[in-house]
Amino acid sequence: MMRPAAKQYVVTRPLYSENSFAEEHERVYRHRKTILDHISQYFTCDAKRAKNAALSLLPVISWMKIYRLKEWLLSDIVSGVSTGLVAVLQGLAYCLLASLPPWYGLFTAFFPVVIYFFLGTSRHISVGPFPVLCLMLGSVVTRLVPDDRPPANITGFEGLTSDEQRVLVAYSVSFLIGIMQLGMGILQVGFVVMYLSDTLVSGFTTAAAIHILISQLKFVLGLTVPGISGPLSIIYTLEIIFNKIKSTNVCDVVIALVIMVVVFIVKELNDRFKSKLPVPIPIEVIMTVIACGVSYAFDFKTRYGIEVVGQIPQGYETPMAPNLDIFQETAVEAFPMAIVGFAVAFSVAKVYAVKHDYTIDGNQELIAFGVSNIFGASFKSFAASTALSRSAVQESTGGKTQVAGLLSAIIVMVVTLAIGFLLEPLPKSVLGAVVIVNLKGMLMQVTEIPYLWKRDKPDCVVWVVTCIASTLLGLDLGLAVGLGVELICVVLRIQFPRCSLLANIKGTDIYKDRKDYVSIYETEGVKIFRIPSPIFFANSDFFRNKLVEALGFNPLRVLRKRNKALRTIKKLLKKGDLQWTSKGFLNASCGPIDESEDESNMEGLDQPTDFNDLPVRINWNAELPANISVPRVDNHSLVLDFAAVSFLDISALKGLKTLLKELIRVEVEVYIVACDPYILEKLHKCCFFDDEVEASMFYLTLHDAMLHILEKHPEFAENKPDCEKIITTVTVHHPGSSLRIRDRNAPDPETRL
Amino acid sequence: MMRPAAKQYVVTRPLYSENSFAEEHERVYRHRKTILDHISQYFTCDAKRAKNAALSLLPVISWMKIYRLKEWLLSDIVSGVSTGLVAVLQGLAYCLLASLPPWYGLFTAFFPVVIYFFLGTSRHISVGPFPVLCLMLGSVVTRLVPDDRPPANITGFEGLTSDEQRVLVAYSVSFLIGIMQLGMGILQVGFVVMYLSDTLVSGFTTAAAIHILISQLKFVLGLTVPGISGPLSIIYTLEIIFNKIKSTNVCDVVIALVIMVVVFIVKELNDRFKSKLPVPIPIEVIMTVIACGVSYAFDFKTRYGIEVVGQIPQGYETPMAPNLDIFQETAVEAFPMAIVGFAVAFSVAKVYAVKHDYTIDGNQELIAFGVSNIFGASFKSFAASTALSRSAVQESTGGKTQVAGLLSAIIVMVVTLAIGFLLEPLPKSVLGAVVIVNLKGMLMQVTEIPYLWKRDKPDCVVWVVTCIASTLLGLDLGLAVGLGVELICVVLRIQFPRCSLLANIKGTDIYKDRKDYVSIYETEGVKIFRIPSPIFFANSDFFRNKLVEALGFNPLRVLRKRNKALRTIKKLLKKGDLQWTSKGFLNASCGPIDESEDESNMEGLDQPTDFNDLPVRINWNAELPANISVPRVDNHSLVLDFAAVSFLDISALKGLKTLLKELIRVEVEVYIVACDPYILEKLHKCCFFDDEVEASMFYLTLHDAMLHILEKHPEFAENKPDCEKIITTVTVHHPGSSLRIRDRNAPDPETRL
Repeated sequence: MMRPAAKQYVVTRPLYSENSFAEEHERVYRHRKTILDHISQYFTCDAKRAKNAALSLLPVISWMKIYRLKEWLLSDIVSGVSTGLVAVLQGLAYCLLASLPPWYGLFTAFFPVVIYFFLGTSRHISVGPFPVLCLMLGSVVTRLVPDDRPPANITGFEGLTSDEQRVLVAYSVSFLIGIMQLGMGILQVGFVVMYLSDTLVSGFTTAAAIHILISQLKFVLGLTVPGISGPLSIIYTLEIIFNKIKSTNVCDVVIALVIMVVVFIVKELNDRFKSKLPVPIPIEVIMTVIACGVSYAFDFKTRYGIEVVGQIPQGYETPMAPNLDIFQETAVEAFPMAIVGFAVAFSVAKVYAVKHDYTIDGNQELIAFGVSNIFGASFKSFAASTALSRSAVQESTGGKTQVAGLLSAIIVMVVTLAIGFLLEPLPKSVLGAVVIVNLKGMLMQVTEIPYLWKRDKPDCVVWVVTCIASTLLGLDLGLAVGLGVELICVVLRIQFPRCSLLANIKGTDIYKDRKDYVSIYETEGVKIFRIPSPIFFANSDFFRNKLVEALGFNPLRVLRKRNKALRTIKKLLKKGDLQWTSKGFLNASCGPIDESEDESNMEGLDQPTDFNDLPVRINWNAELPANISVPRVDNHSLVLDFAAVSFLDISALKGLKTLLKELIRVEVEVYIVACDPYILEKLHKCCFFDDEVEASMFYLTLHDAMLHILEKHPEFAENKPDCEKIITTVTVHHPGSSLRIRDRNAPDPETRL
Repeated sequence: MMRPAAKQYVVTRPLYSENSFAEEHERVYRHRKTILDHISQYFTCDAKRAKNAALSLLPVISWMKIYRLKEWLLSDIVSGVSTGLVAVLQGLAYCLLASLPPWYGLFTAFFPVVIYFFLGTSRHISVGPFPVLCLMLGSVVTRLVPDDRPPANITGFEGLTSDEQRVLVAYSVSFLIGIMQLGMGILQVGFVVMYLSDTLVSGFTTAAAIHILISQLKFVLGLTVPGISGPLSIIYTLEIIFNKIKSTNVCDVVIALVIMVVVFIVKELNDRFKSKLPVPIPIEVIMTVIACGVSYAFDFKTRYGIEVVGQIPQGYETPMAPNLDIFQETAVEAFPMAIVGFAVAFSVAKVYAVKHDYTIDGNQELIAFGVSNIFGASFKSFAASTALSRSAVQESTGGKTQVAGLLSAIIVMVVTLAIGFLLEPLPKSVLGAVVIVNLKGMLMQVTEIPYLWKRDKPDCVVWVVTCIASTLLGLDLGLAVGLGVELICVVLRIQFPRCSLLANIKGTDIYKDRKDYVSIYETEGVKIFRIPSPIFFANSDFFRNKLVEALGFNPLRVLRKRNKALRTIKKLLKKGDLQWTSKGFLNASCGPIDESEDESNMEGLDQPTDFNDLPVRINWNAELPANISVPRVDNHSLVLDFAAVSFLDISALKGLKTLLKELIRVEVEVYIVACDPYILEKLHKCCFFDDEVEASMFYLTLHDAMLHILEKHPEFAENKPDCEKIITTVTVHHPGSSLRIRDRNAPDPETRL
C-alpha cells in the first residue's frame, strides 16, 4: 500500500519480469485505430459535422455573432484608420522591394484583406504586403525580367513593357502561391510550419533584413542599380553600389537620414511611453505627408534630380488570368514563398491569439491566405502575408476584429480611387528610409547568437548557418539549407549520445553512472549498459561499438574462436591425439597442432557452439586442452537499460537481434529492462523472438533484473573481497595436459583434474 | 543490501529528491572535455602518434608484415587471374553505361587498383568500375555532350571529337570526385555514410538497376538511342525505344538472349553447388570468349550489322590535367557520386572485414579512394569504386589480400598492352546481356517491400520514395530526396509520440498507462504524465497541447481569469462594495459587476497572482464573492516522467519553463522525475531555475515523487471511497455572499464562512 512514512521509501512486492507481470495483471484490450479507421472517420459525414465544417470555413460567422457593437466598433474604426494609413505607406514602400511600380502595393493592401475578412481565423493581424515575401518575389521578377538583359523567353511577354512584364510575373507567381497554400490547407498539412523553428525563423528573417537593407540602399543613395537575383547576388549588388558610390545624390541621402533619425527617435519614445499614450504617434505617416508636401513645394524632382513615386493611375485594373508558362518557370521558387508567407502570418496570429485568448486554425489560415492570394492575384495584386509592424499598429490602436482590417482596406481604396495623385511627388528615398528604420527589430535578432551559444550549441549553429546561407545564397535556397541543417541537428543529437555503464548505489534500488559516484557498487560479472536515446540506422553501429567496448570483448570474435577451438578438439578426439577420461581431457600427443586448415573454412563459425559430439560441455574460461586458447569472457550477464529508447527502426531491430544472438551464443545472459510497451509490442509483431532470443529476457525494472541475476548466480550475490581471488584460481595455468571442465551431468559445476 | 530472496522485491531506503540524493551521495568530479580539448588533443604530436599516423596512411605495411607467403600467395594468384578476367569484361561493359568508348573501362580497372593496393584497408574488395557510378557519370557526360545537340559551352572542347569531349568530361569529373573523397577523408567525416541506411541504399540501388536495365536495352535490341539525362529521362528513353522497336536487330536480340539464359543458369548452378566447386565457373568470361570467336568467324559486324566493340588502341594515353570549367559545371553532381562510390565500397568492405575478422578504417578508405581516383583520372580512367559481383569473385576464388587485386590489374594491363585487339569483334549486345544478368540481385531487392511494410511502415515509405524518386528524377536527385525523407522520418518518429497518463499498480512501486490495466490506482488530484520522446522545436507545442488536454484545463487561461477576478475583488474592496470580515468576504451590494473595463488592459494578467493588498489568500476552487467565477483546478500536483526524454533543445527549454511557470502560478505543484543527469546539468547551465521554477522539483523516481506528494497531501493518501465527497462538499454553492477562503495564518487550511 502506498502510505507515506517519514520520508522513507519502502517497497515489498514480487519480482517481475515483463512476462510474470503480464500474467499477474490483467490488461485491458484496446482497439488501436488503423489508418483505414482514421480515413473512414475523416470522411464520415453527418449534419453536425457538415455544419461545423461550414462554420469553420467561414469563421466570420462565428465572430460576427459575438460582435459587441457598442464596445468594439469604435476601437475597430480608430484602429482601421490608423492601420489604413500605414498600409498605404507600406504598400508603396514594399513594392520597391518587389521591383514593381509602387501602386501595385496598394492593390495588395486591398484585395487580399477583403477575402481574409471572411475566411481568416485571426482577429488581429493586418493582411497585406510583407517585406520578406516582397523581396523573394522581387528576386523572381528580376530573374525573369532583368534590368540589363532581355527578359526570359516566355509566351505572353510580347508587346508588353518591362514594367508590365514584371507585373505579369508578380501576379502569376502570387496566383501560384495562392494555389499552393489552398492545396496545403485542403490537404490539412498546416503542421509543416512546425519545422520552421524559432531559431530558424530568427536566422532567416535576420538574413532577410540584411537583404532588404542592401536593396533599399540604392533608393537612399539615389543610385540606379539593376536588380540581381541568384546566389551571391548580395555581393554583386554591393559591388555595383560601391562602384557607383561617387554618383550618390546628396539630397536623397539628406532626406533619408532626416526621416530615419526622426522616425527612429519617435518610435523609441512610442515604445518608452507605451502605457501613457492612447495610440502610438503615427510618425511614419506624418513624415511621409511632410516629405510629400516639401517635395511638391520645392519641386525636388526637377531641381535635385530626386526619383519620386511618379504617376499613380487612378482606379483598379481589369482582372487577368495568370500565365501558365510562368507557373512552370517559378514553381520551385513559389513553394518556399508559400511556406514563408503563411508561416510568418501564422506565427504572428498565434501570438495575438494567445494574448487575447482565442484559437486560430492553421489549416483554415492556409485556406484563407490561399483564396486571398488567388483572388488578389486575379486583380494584379501580389502575394500577401502580414507585416509585424502593421499588425502591431492594428492591435495596439485597439483593433478587436477584422472589421478594423476591412476599414484599413477601405482607406487604401480611397487612396487608390481618389487621392493617389497626392503621393506622386513623394521621393523614393523616403520610402527606402521608412523601410530601413523598420528593420531594427529584425536586425537586432543578431543578439541572440551569444545567448544561443551559451545555452545550446546546435541551435546556435542552425541560426548562424541559416543566416549566412540565406544571406549569401538567397532566401529560398538559404531556407532549404537551414531546414536541412536543422533536421540533421535533430538526428545528430540522438546519434552520438553518451552511453554509460551503471552501477548500484549501495542499499538502494537506484542505479547511476558508475563513474559519477564515489561509493557505488558494481556486481561482479554483470554489466549494466544504459542506452540513452532511440536506436536507428545512424547510431545502431555506434551502440554496438560502445557496448563491445564496455564488455571488453567482441562476442562474434569470441564465438568464432570457440567454434574453431571446438573443431580442433573434435578433430583431435577423432584422431586420438586427445582423449576424454572421467577426470577431463588428456593430451595423448604433445606436438604442435596444425590449425591452418580451418582458416579457409569459415562456414558455420557464427552458429551456436555445438557440443553434440563431445562428452562434456567445455568451460571456456578455464584452460583448454592442447594449448588451444580462446578469449576470456568474464561477464555472465548483461543488462540493457531501455528506459530512454523511444523508438527502434528496422536497422536497429536487425542489429539488436544479431547482437543478442551473438551474446547468447557465447553464454552471456542478456536482460532488457524498462522497455516501452509500444516497442515491446512492435518486437512481438516483427517476429523478433525465436528459440534463442526469448521474450523472457524483458524485465520491468533494472532492479528486478538484478535481483533475478543474483538469485541465479548466488556466488556473486555479495561484493565479497575474495571474489576476485575465486576467479583467478579458476584460471591457474597448468601446462601440458590439464583442463578445467564442467561435466554436463555432475551437480558440482567446478571439477578439477 | 542486495540479496535475492525468493523472487521478492524488497527495498527500504530514504526518499530521494535529486537534491537530497546529491547531498547524501558524493559525486566524482569529472572533467568534461571541451571542443578545445578535443582539438588540441587531435593536433598533439609525439613519436608514437606520428608512427601510427604514418602506418595508418600506408596500411600495406601492416598487412605485408604478416603476409604468409607459403599459404596465401597461391590463393592470391588464382584469385587475381580470375578477377582480372572478370575485370576486363566488366571494364568494357560498364563503360557503355558511362557512354564512353569501351577501352577507358580497362584504364579504370588498372590505375585505381594500383593505388588502392598501397592505401586501402580492405583486403578483399576488387577496386574498379561500379555500374551505378558509371551510370551517374554517364548522365553527366550526356548532359554536357549530348548526342543530338551541340555540346555545352566549355573552353577546352574546341577541336575535340565528341568522344574525346566525353572522355574529357568523364576524367575531369572523376578527378573532382577524387578531390572530394580525399577532402572528406582528411576532414575525418567518413561517418556521413551512416546516413545512407540499408533501406535507403536498397531502394536506391534498385532504382539504379532499373536505370541500368533501360540503358542496356538499346545494345540488346541493337538500336541507336541518344543518351538523355535529367528528371524523367527514363520515360523519354523508353518512349524513344518503343518508337524505334521496329528497327530491332534480331541477331543482337538472339545473341543477347542466348548469353543471358546460359549465364543465368550457370550462375544458379554456381550458387547451388557453391560448396562442391573449388572455384565458381567463370561463365561470363567463357561466353564472352566464345562470342568473340563466333563473331569474328562469321563476321557478324558486316553480315548482320551488329555493333561491336571496335578498335581498341594499344597502350596507355599520356596523363592530362582536368578541365576546371567542367569542375564548375559538375560540382553539384560530383558530390553524390563521391558519396555513393565510397559508401558502396565501404559497405562491401565492411561485410568482408566482419567475415574475415579485421578492421577497416572509413576515413583511410576515403583517402585511398580519393587518391586512387585523382591518380586514375590523370591517366584518363574514370571514377572507381567496387562492384559487388567482382569482389565476390575475388573473395570466393580465395583472394586473401590486395595482392590478388594487384594481379588482376596486371591481367588488365596485359589486355590493354598486348591482346586487346582480340576483343574487337565482340558484339556490344553481349556486354549488355552480361550487365543485365548481373542485375538480378539488385532487382530482387523489390521483395523487401512487403517485409518492410509488415515490420516498420516509415522504413517502407523511405524505400519506396527513394526508389521512385531515383527512378524518375535521376539518381543524384533521387538520393537527395531519399535522404530528406529518411531524416524527416526520424524527426516524425519522435515528433508525434504517444503520450500517456500513468497510474499506480496497487501495492507496488510500478506505474503503467492507466488505460492499459484493469486494476490500476490513480491518486486523486495527481496527474502523472509520461513524455515518451525527446522534446524539441517540432513537438514542444504538441506536448503542451497533450498535457493541457490531460490536465483538463489550460493553466494560462486559468491564471488570467484568476488575475482578472483578483482585480475585480480588489476594486470592489476599494469601492466598498465588498468587505472583509473575520469570517470571510461579504458582498455589500448585490448589483451586477461591470467587468468590461478590464477587457482592454491585458498587462500583468500573466504574472503570479498577487494577494498583497488582500487580507487572505483566496481558495480558487471555492465559491468566489460577487458571483465571480474562475475555472476549477482539481489537480494539486503534476508529475512529469522524463525517463525517455533524451534531449531538450532551446525551444523545448523555453516552452517547458513557460509551462512550469504557468502551472506553479495556478498553484499546481510540478515534479519532474527520472531526468537524465546530462539534461539536469544543462538546465542548471542554461539558468533554467529561478524563484518560481526550482531545482527541488526534480525527484529520482516516480515513486519517490508520489510518496513525497502523499506525505504533503495526506488527505489524498488512501484511495478512500469518500474522497470524491470531500471535494464536492468543498464546492457546495452558496448563492449571494459567501466565499470559502484559506486564511494565510490559520493552521487549518479549510475554514468556512
